[in-house]
Amino acid sequence: MIQIAIMGLGTVGTGVAKVIAENSRQIERKLGEPLQVKRVLVRRFKDGPYRQLMTDDFTKIEEDDDIRVVVETIGGVDAAYEYTKRALMAGKHVVTANKQLVAEKGCELLALARRKNVSYLFEASVGGGIPVLHPLTQCMAANRIDEVYGILNGTTNYILTRMVRTGASFADALAEAQEKGYAEADPTADVEGIDAGRKTCILADLAFGHQVDPDNVPMEGISKLYLEDVKIAERGGYRIKLLGRAVRLPNGRSAYVAPHLIQEDHPMANVEDVFNAVMVKGNATGDVMFYGRGAGEMPTASACVSDVMEVLQSSARRDEINWSEDGEGFVDPAELKNRYYFRIPGSLTIAAADFGEVEVLSEGSETAFLTEPITGREAQAHAERLRAIACLRVLG
Amino acid sequence: MIQIAIMGLGTVGTGVAKVIAENSRQIERKLGEPLQVKRVLVRRFKDGPYRQLMTDDFTKIEEDDDIRVVVETIGGVDAAYEYTKRALMAGKHVVTANKQLVAEKGCELLALARRKNVSYLFEASVGGGIPVLHPLTQCMAANRIDEVYGILNGTTNYILTRMVRTGASFADALAEAQEKGYAEADPTADVEGIDAGRKTCILADLAFGHQVDPDNVPMEGISKLYLEDVKIAERGGYRIKLLGRAVRLPNGRSAYVAPHLIQEDHPMANVEDVFNAVMVKGNATGDVMFYGRGAGEMPTASACVSDVMEVLQSSARRDEINWSEDGEGFVDPAELKNRYYFRIPGSLTIAAADFGEVEVLSEGSETAFLTEPITGREAQAHAERLRAIACLRVLG
Repeated sequence: MIQIAIMGLGTVGTGVAKVIAENSRQIERKLGEPLQVKRVLVRRFKDGPYRQLMTDDFTKIEEDDDIRVVVETIGGVDAAYEYTKRALMAGKHVVTANKQLVAEKGCELLALARRKNVSYLFEASVGGGIPVLHPLTQCMAANRIDEVYGILNGTTNYILTRMVRTGASFADALAEAQEKGYAEADPTADVEGIDAGRKTCILADLAFGHQVDPDNVPMEGISKLYLEDVKIAERGGYRIKLLGRAVRLPNGRSAYVAPHLIQEDHPMANVEDVFNAVMVKGNATGDVMFYGRGAGEMPTASACVSDVMEVLQSSARRDEINWSEDGEGFVDPAELKNRYYFRIPGSLTIAAADFGEVEVLSEGSETAFLTEPITGREAQAHAERLRAIACLRVLG
Repeated sequence: MIQIAIMGLGTVGTGVAKVIAENSRQIERKLGEPLQVKRVLVRRFKDGPYRQLMTDDFTKIEEDDDIRVVVETIGGVDAAYEYTKRALMAGKHVVTANKQLVAEKGCELLALARRKNVSYLFEASVGGGIPVLHPLTQCMAANRIDEVYGILNGTTNYILTRMVRTGASFADALAEAQEKGYAEADPTADVEGIDAGRKTCILADLAFGHQVDPDNVPMEGISKLYLEDVKIAERGGYRIKLLGRAVRLPNGRSAYVAPHLIQEDHPMANVEDVFNAVMVKGNATGDVMFYGRGAGEMPTASACVSDVMEVLQSSARRDEINWSEDGEGFVDPAELKNRYYFRIPGSLTIAAADFGEVEVLSEGSETAFLTEPITGREAQAHAERLRAIACLRVLG
């Protein structure tokens, strides 16, 4: 019998308990013995199936030598950070879905785990139930990773899908997402790209081996996206998707979150609703994509439980899940070159005067067009000169 | 310094040596020491960069205690099987891309590896450079896997893509694939679904935990596919893809390879050219898809080298990569229900008389239509009665 504790009994924490109960046969077959939740740390006691396991006293977990793994699903930094440190100090493996904590404090917590000869794993923090971090660090270990990008936030992808399919405005699609429980009452972290940004940082940390600080990563969401541009892109053979992107550069790395036009025959173009997808470019494998449910109780929880099984089976620490705290070499993504989509007031003549040749998507009292590759800085200058209504990157 | 041997210096074997040389920095950073190829087993000596490492005497590898890992890229069963057994017996880890050997003898070789406390890993045997087997067995370990299916053969997917894009017949598209080096002079294993079938068996073994014998798995390729049906499907909003599919059943499992119609908004619809994709249905994660280059020197080789790094880093054997030799419970896939696509000589009246209501895709002197879900056995009976020109499964 292997005993673990869950900290926090929200959506993911409850899911962890459910997955362990529902798939107990599969889990026992692989571990060779049953897996049991011994304690659940909560702030407030409440009735339900886990009432008997609840405690509001962390020392009950910290000091219990029977508990070998702690699953942290508290979220945020404060208490989660404190308890994670103490659990690792107490020689327990810690598994989490907490992207904010990993993005901000992951490097320090991994170093602490190494010192205590235990593991700190967080597969569920990026892509929910989709295996991404282990494949990136293990299965592609023999590659130099040159780029990672992805649809990392299900809420915004749902909103974008509804805008395309039903012609809803951003505000209406957001209201619908909130009704269905896909968006929170305060949707800021999702729609402003902050959630995707944290995940992008974790991907960049692991892909390039150096800390990428969330404070340095420009995060642009979809709240300022016009339905008009979604429609023009669609008619031109493109979809608009919110992408987090991390790029290896000759002397460093860069990362950002922003909406992009992607071509309709790109493998990510069909990633709809709350699904996520992550593309990894290895110098030997080429493009590899991981696709699935990026959020939700059971997918995210199953990734946590798989991590629990991993730390129990692998007597070795997973040293390849690791990066340096040295964040030097971060390049402002405004230096990166992309093709850009512009919508400007006025005719093609105005666009042509500023850009030379462009690829026109729509003409009229306004003109929408695609440019040749330019830097973000150049795009910004053009946008100001032309009083652009929309200015979006094109992927690829 | 960690030393390994490569057996066989064909495309993949050469790629393994190249990946180790080109990505030596990445590899050394992760392993903590350099990785070096000490010996290469060949049948015939030839000039080139690895001339000094070559031997045609397997005992030079078998008896060399410095060699901790052997990468087997000989292919086929005979010599590969013999040398793999002897390398494992000698206490060396073995890594391979050899799908035929794993599909036919994997269970026995894994048991031998366990007895000798070493690993036998074969990530590269399915999906080339795409991480599939580790994610399936590790990252999704907390799931009951209910189904796995995929585009598992790049040659046939290239041919199908060319048929759609250029309107080439199967024969012309095959000739083009051969010209470009995507198909071998004898293309039988690819176009008749045998290569995809072996990969399907490996996926089924790992997903369901019981041996699925390639001899029991019906393998239908694309050599009998008409361009006409590719076009009708395309106009009706479908693509035709060769899928290997393995399904968990209430009291067993089934597996087969056959061309399927899949809807154009399915995430696999955009998997074109030589790319592969594998969909895994976990009871907690839902649908998860892995996409990338399923073949080729560098992708496949990099998966082998990543496996080498995995066995060196993980002091534990990977016990979850494992299945029972008990193959009881294999169900003939003719018992599975699917919607079917038919093209028959004659009018809709004839189809309606046999099937009741159907969804018509094309009418004329011939009629093409989609049925409600029926078993393969029923489809076969209908096809004979109606003298069907084409009878294909529809996915989903």
